[in-house]
Amino acid sequence: MALKEQKREITINDIAKELNISPSTVSRALNDNAKISEATKEKVKAVAQDLGYELNLVASSLSKNKTNVIGVIIPNIGSQFFAKALSGIQEVARANGYNVIICQTNESVQQEVDMTRVMNSARVDGLVCCLTMETKDVGHFDVFTKKGIPVAMFDRVSYAVPGPKIVVDNYEAAYTATEHLINLGCKRVAHLAGTTSSKVFCDRTEGFKDALQKNDLPLLPQYLLSSDLTEQDARDAVRIWMNLPDKPDGIVAASASSGLIISAAAKSAGVRLPEDLSIISLGNERCNEFVTPSLSAVDMPGYDMGKSAVEQLIKCIKSEKVDSSITLKPIQLLIRNSSFKH
Amino acid sequence: MALKEQKREITINDIAKELNISPSTVSRALNDNAKISEATKEKVKAVAQDLGYELNLVASSLSKNKTNVIGVIIPNIGSQFFAKALSGIQEVARANGYNVIICQTNESVQQEVDMTRVMNSARVDGLVCCLTMETKDVGHFDVFTKKGIPVAMFDRVSYAVPGPKIVVDNYEAAYTATEHLINLGCKRVAHLAGTTSSKVFCDRTEGFKDALQKNDLPLLPQYLLSSDLTEQDARDAVRIWMNLPDKPDGIVAASASSGLIISAAAKSAGVRLPEDLSIISLGNERCNEFVTPSLSAVDMPGYDMGKSAVEQLIKCIKSEKVDSSITLKPIQLLIRNSSFKH
Repeated sequence: MALKEQKREITINDIAKELNISPSTVSRALNDNAKISEATKEKVKAVAQDLGYELNLVASSLSKNKTNVIGVIIPNIGSQFFAKALSGIQEVARANGYNVIICQTNESVQQEVDMTRVMNSARVDGLVCCLTMETKDVGHFDVFTKKGIPVAMFDRVSYAVPGPKIVVDNYEAAYTATEHLINLGCKRVAHLAGTTSSKVFCDRTEGFKDALQKNDLPLLPQYLLSSDLTEQDARDAVRIWMNLPDKPDGIVAASASSGLIISAAAKSAGVRLPEDLSIISLGNERCNEFVTPSLSAVDMPGYDMGKSAVEQLIKCIKSEKVDSSITLKPIQLLIRNSSFKH
Repeated sequence: MALKEQKREITINDIAKELNISPSTVSRALNDNAKISEATKEKVKAVAQDLGYELNLVASSLSKNKTNVIGVIIPNIGSQFFAKALSGIQEVARANGYNVIICQTNESVQQEVDMTRVMNSARVDGLVCCLTMETKDVGHFDVFTKKGIPVAMFDRVSYAVPGPKIVVDNYEAAYTATEHLINLGCKRVAHLAGTTSSKVFCDRTEGFKDALQKNDLPLLPQYLLSSDLTEQDARDAVRIWMNLPDKPDGIVAASASSGLIISAAAKSAGVRLPEDLSIISLGNERCNEFVTPSLSAVDMPGYDMGKSAVEQLIKCIKSEKVDSSITLKPIQLLIRNSSFKH
């Protein structure tokens, strides 16, 4: 029981006792009520700090319905795309007086469900979310909708949840990358695609296919491999392609990280880069600049997506009019040494 | 007022009304009380979910003093060291039934202060923290100490806050790296050091200096540059060093990211790597493997540090004995192509 005693919350009653004033005076002082003198406010706040009393934002939310906290649920903090998105989210949130708490799902829908519970219990004023690749059912977001807590989604979104959606034109990203390789003279362009259960990767695959078709290049089934984009998947794809009689002379990788592995694996297999094989990745990581040859990429606007998502969310929190759906342009084609004039 | 109405919290009274049973039965059912039949529990839980009632972990904590949430405050989510630490934290926390919420300080002590407030309001059961480079005063952690909420610190720690500390021997890391270059035949070893306001970087600088001294190599002032380790700092250092009559033949970079920039800048300046210049970084990033030449490093065990920090924290939460207040994690020398036998 000693532990429980030690962990007991400090309440305004403790402060009132210490100063020998009424709890309601303490409460008013802590809430900057105009009826209380500045001297009393200062005394109350000093004692509050001394006792370890923190203005309880959660309790405060029960009356004001505000915690000034925005929750963020993202799949993977280690990825540069999400790190940039977080920068955008945090900058805008902070400029508007909001703090940000972040949960990571590790691409697990069960963790996503748990994290929505945590965010709900933390009484966030609003939620910014990018879904896991596994997420199909989105019933775990209903609790926010029912309580009128806005949810903004970016990148991997579900239109079954009301609220602003910020996406990038993934079709265009892949189309641009593929056409870039074709314009350099590539005749046998392959694509390591992501999972077909994700709209992001389906759109990228469509962009790849249409770029081939529009440029009268055949789409050979062995040139389009769908995968989870793990390190092993990327190595397997290189092994399969480099054993074909008609090896690809260009590869579009559906993610930055698979592009780096493809490039390293092809080099290890003795393929001359970029003379015999051009590579471009959808998504840019810092490594892309440092590898030899440096790796061309279509840059995804992570920072801008995070920024837009939280801007729209704050409008929702303030009950202002929002743009329900924003599609950002990818994008920037970053031409580096891995794409080569054939 | 419509908005407020819409955002009203669903309470057990609403569930009781819906089922025409007493609120205390609802409460017992939600808390899995043995006195309530399984059938009633199921009905109550179904209605609770339907109405958007979430078992309020915060309110629950007022009686049980538990939210099963661990808070993490770290400087920079984008860095690979912290991403690895987070993986370790999250794996162990989850295995022990805890959810994790994360705040990022962006190396700003003001944000660190704000984030401790957010974590306090969110009623975390414990806190894992790595301080910002700016943090000197640690009074903002007092609120946790006073309430008996344990705080575990890793990497950048303050001994003024009670609780477990997980650190690495930064002196040894730098000493090992420097001696590695000396053993390869380097005679003019330089160090791009971090800020002297951080114990981590002071320890690294001391390790560098002692390794030179013990091996009878002179420490020339122009070979020891202190900086904030930004991209520009690293480029400036290379420019300064490559314009010296006695150019360094070995460089110890105080961080992974500055090592990568130094390597790229030296290559751009026409320096032959590794024949004319060996480079090693304190801290390892994924890129280190992919660059040419691949970049030697002393690996800092981010994953293990995060794992230990949360293991110790959970013991504190459960009032179990912790192994030791200070845990020292071993470092590892990763020899790659950038360190060359001269």
